[in-house]
Amino acid sequence: MTDKADLPVSHDLPIALDAAGGDNGAAPNVAGAVAAAKAGVRVMLIGDPVKLHAELGQHPGAAQLPLEIVAASDVIGMDEHASDVRGRKEASINVAARLVKDGKAGALVSIGHSGATMAASLLILGRLPGIERPAILTYIPAKNGAVALLDAGANADVKASYLPQWAHLASIYLRTVEGRENPTVGLLSIGEEDHKGNAVTLEAHALLRTQAGINFHGNVEGGDVFKGTTDIIVTDGFTGNVVLKLAEGEARVLFGWIREALTSSTRAKLGGLMVRNAVRAVADKMDPATYGASILLGVRGLSFIGHGSADARAVKNALLRASRAQQSQLIARLSESLQAGEAVQ
Amino acid sequence: MTDKADLPVSHDLPIALDAAGGDNGAAPNVAGAVAAAKAGVRVMLIGDPVKLHAELGQHPGAAQLPLEIVAASDVIGMDEHASDVRGRKEASINVAARLVKDGKAGALVSIGHSGATMAASLLILGRLPGIERPAILTYIPAKNGAVALLDAGANADVKASYLPQWAHLASIYLRTVEGRENPTVGLLSIGEEDHKGNAVTLEAHALLRTQAGINFHGNVEGGDVFKGTTDIIVTDGFTGNVVLKLAEGEARVLFGWIREALTSSTRAKLGGLMVRNAVRAVADKMDPATYGASILLGVRGLSFIGHGSADARAVKNALLRASRAQQSQLIARLSESLQAGEAVQ
Repeated sequence: MTDKADLPVSHDLPIALDAAGGDNGAAPNVAGAVAAAKAGVRVMLIGDPVKLHAELGQHPGAAQLPLEIVAASDVIGMDEHASDVRGRKEASINVAARLVKDGKAGALVSIGHSGATMAASLLILGRLPGIERPAILTYIPAKNGAVALLDAGANADVKASYLPQWAHLASIYLRTVEGRENPTVGLLSIGEEDHKGNAVTLEAHALLRTQAGINFHGNVEGGDVFKGTTDIIVTDGFTGNVVLKLAEGEARVLFGWIREALTSSTRAKLGGLMVRNAVRAVADKMDPATYGASILLGVRGLSFIGHGSADARAVKNALLRASRAQQSQLIARLSESLQAGEAVQ
Repeated sequence: MTDKADLPVSHDLPIALDAAGGDNGAAPNVAGAVAAAKAGVRVMLIGDPVKLHAELGQHPGAAQLPLEIVAASDVIGMDEHASDVRGRKEASINVAARLVKDGKAGALVSIGHSGATMAASLLILGRLPGIERPAILTYIPAKNGAVALLDAGANADVKASYLPQWAHLASIYLRTVEGRENPTVGLLSIGEEDHKGNAVTLEAHALLRTQAGINFHGNVEGGDVFKGTTDIIVTDGFTGNVVLKLAEGEARVLFGWIREALTSSTRAKLGGLMVRNAVRAVADKMDPATYGASILLGVRGLSFIGHGSADARAVKNALLRASRAQQSQLIARLSESLQAGEAVQ
């Protein structure tokens, strides 16, 4: 257990960016940090100082921005094991997590090895009171804005008791960071009726019904994700991960088909030129880079996890999101609410 | 256990259509049956003879088609319980299943209560040898043709041992009915690596590795569904049902956005008229009516389950698919292969 005094008081700290992580090395990290810094976010770039200085040199005027380099001599490669974080103290993700733990950074952002980011966050930051396991909250574009889905992959197997905890965390998150009052929570299942589902969802449904502090809508189905029936959808990390990757993959294939269709004949080509911008606006809505990163909810500090393939825009948006979460004092709010067991308004 | 002699010998029997089932009553069923009959499929329409005769009267020339009405005095309503099939022998779905069992119909097709269709099929037709539970095989459109996904919802909770059985059934199905030689099987999971997954998929992965008669590709992820990485994807009925409904729901929302985008400005409207047919062709690819119905694999008879909201085109396509499955002697092939434990070629 913890109390408020343990938590960092300042909410204007720099954001720690694991600048060594990701499929494409330092380049998208540094470019994203430069863009975020121009928007007023202070960023600590963590990694090999020589490489980071060289990369910063590509950005004229970067020296005048609120960017700071913090040395880390090691990095967990994308093909290494998440458990490697235990033995490798100087790995960039461990350095980033310690900066958050020590109150020197307000949040960490990594597009590196996501398992390692989860492990380092859990080991170094620890869990919030009353939370058995942290979960990844991600956004899926939906008819009326985005739906917050969790768990998107931190826990392949779950106990039913995790789900009301996650519903509580997500409710406070949306209220605090996104300003959505009294967000609705749906339990992902295979029928709207209370008695439909697998063993875990049936048990979770009963727990969610009696969970204080959340606005439980009931079961939702796969078709409700894009419909945006609820603000939040809770599910196990296996199903959530499949949903997230299916949603992204389907959009990619459908837009590929549309692009082909728009060049399938002379007539379609001509029309295609005229609708190009309108169609691109729809495709942008589906682009994960818009959301930047997912948040690991349930640890005692802000931890954001992005795609390994994230580009500069995604890194920038992740840093902006992390900064907003810090300014809203999310961790203090979560901690207070969990300790008080107070209702979400 | 059973042997070949038990199985219906003829493979040119009429198809039993539960014409009373579905959200919209007899109309789409009768219209679909008329269309299928025009394409040469013999259909038994099961339901209230007065209503069915009246509905057939709407279709000039129907009297000359190979359509037969079989009376059933009861129907399981969409909001009733699947378990009701036990006590209600005269319900249309029970009559249909008995016609298949007795060798008077070659297959049953229903767009009625899907739980009732599963229950009636299982109770009346029984299971194929070596199959613990039947599974629903459905099609998801993918880059290179459609992917066969199972279980799409018959089993919310599964034992790992079901999955290699379903992989075997689906492999023979694709080979026999679709003419796809040596189809590849993917296990839906949350990472390509063998060690990624939940408890059930880890155990199933090991079983699939050693299962004779299938071409096991390994794990696939949510993003592989639309990519069409494998011909077949096996998963539990909870995840499969979420995948199916998400895939349909996402397509509906994306095409809705595209339609809006194509009327968002004068320029887009003009271009929209020129690309309308090309975009509609893509939307058609995603329309579940193209596939007509899913098949319940693992029971000793052909049983096809359609959407409650299916239209005449979907019913027609389901009847054509059922007829094709009958002509390919699918049940005999499945039974032989399961008894012999022979390898799929």
